[in-house]
Amino acid sequence: MSRVRIHNMFVSLDGFAAGTYVTTDHPIGDAAALFAGFDGRVIHGIDGVDAPITLDRALTSLWGQGIGVEIMGRRKFGPQSGPWDDDGWRGWWGDEPPFRTPVIVLTHHAREPIEFANGTVFHFLDAAPAEALQRARELAPGTDVRIGGGPTVCRQFLEADLVDFMHVVVVPVVLGEGERAFPHGAALTDRFDMEVVSTPGGRTHQLWNRRAREM
Amino acid sequence: MSRVRIHNMFVSLDGFAAGTYVTTDHPIGDAAALFAGFDGRVIHGIDGVDAPITLDRALTSLWGQGIGVEIMGRRKFGPQSGPWDDDGWRGWWGDEPPFRTPVIVLTHHAREPIEFANGTVFHFLDAAPAEALQRARELAPGTDVRIGGGPTVCRQFLEADLVDFMHVVVVPVVLGEGERAFPHGAALTDRFDMEVVSTPGGRTHQLWNRRAREM
Repeated sequence: MSRVRIHNMFVSLDGFAAGTYVTTDHPIGDAAALFAGFDGRVIHGIDGVDAPITLDRALTSLWGQGIGVEIMGRRKFGPQSGPWDDDGWRGWWGDEPPFRTPVIVLTHHAREPIEFANGTVFHFLDAAPAEALQRARELAPGTDVRIGGGPTVCRQFLEADLVDFMHVVVVPVVLGEGERAFPHGAALTDRFDMEVVSTPGGRTHQLWNRRAREM
Repeated sequence: MSRVRIHNMFVSLDGFAAGTYVTTDHPIGDAAALFAGFDGRVIHGIDGVDAPITLDRALTSLWGQGIGVEIMGRRKFGPQSGPWDDDGWRGWWGDEPPFRTPVIVLTHHAREPIEFANGTVFHFLDAAPAEALQRARELAPGTDVRIGGGPTVCRQFLEADLVDFMHVVVVPVVLGEGERAFPHGAALTDRFDMEVVSTPGGRTHQLWNRRAREM
């Protein structure tokens, strides 16, 4: 039992997404409007904040449950491209990255792991989705694996049919441009069962569960 | 910050409830029909089971988040009444009670605490709601307190206006008789903001959040 899960994937009405985790230091351009209703303080549990336990917060709090490792794209880790400069960059998050688990950063450029006191360890790996997933399971056997985004990485795992669960939040915002949330033309909806509920704030939550695979 | 929360309070269409936690050994008579859609395996997190992450399971998984102590009625602990026999009764749950925290059992009959290896400790207390709550906060400072039921205990805490959050699940079942979920004639809905969503299984989830109190 080790599911592959995507959480808090915010998508505009015209189908653009901007990753699965964001802070004010990491707005991903105009797509920041997508995250207006996102309370990142509850990703480790609704007790992270003394505020109403809304449906939005309740579903956000699934993010960390049973997750032992995350896989993310390089651009979620930092703004650089090409070989790593020796500039001391340790991610967007200061001394307390919110992950608290191993994290695989997909990059073509090798680099030594970076470790934090709170359990977060960034491992840098040049690999396709299936291989990255295998490495993730070695790092955290028996736990669920989160695909942390951005949208390109999520799309690659969806195209490879490696995703078991996806929490999508459709937001009443039109972006006009951006990174597409879903693979082109793939029969994605045929593979998943979906539950959809709306919240008073105007967001629509979709819980996608992969149907049982043929053995 | 220490909220008082009620979780997984299942209510029939005609307003009867049967507590907030149940197992097959503890069906509470005909009211067992209320719990047909309840997956108790996920109360400590959706990773408790290798099954689809549905809205029902997602909301059930809030049960333990940030909870440091529970308050329950005597009948949730056992079927006895009157003074305790020295019969070795340690609750319905065997060696692994699902609570994993201190639990206050409200009873008029004193008894020594009962401790389990998994962190569950039953304390027996003869007290009104406000006093029980004070004792709970001493046992687990700074954490949220769960009112675990049965319905009578939940009603008493609601009547005393001590509840900050309530997750009610209305189930498409008519019982005809049972224990009422809500206090009679109290202006309960005036005190809470409510979000309501339905799930494909026919259950309606209500998230009640107490409005900010006047200082």
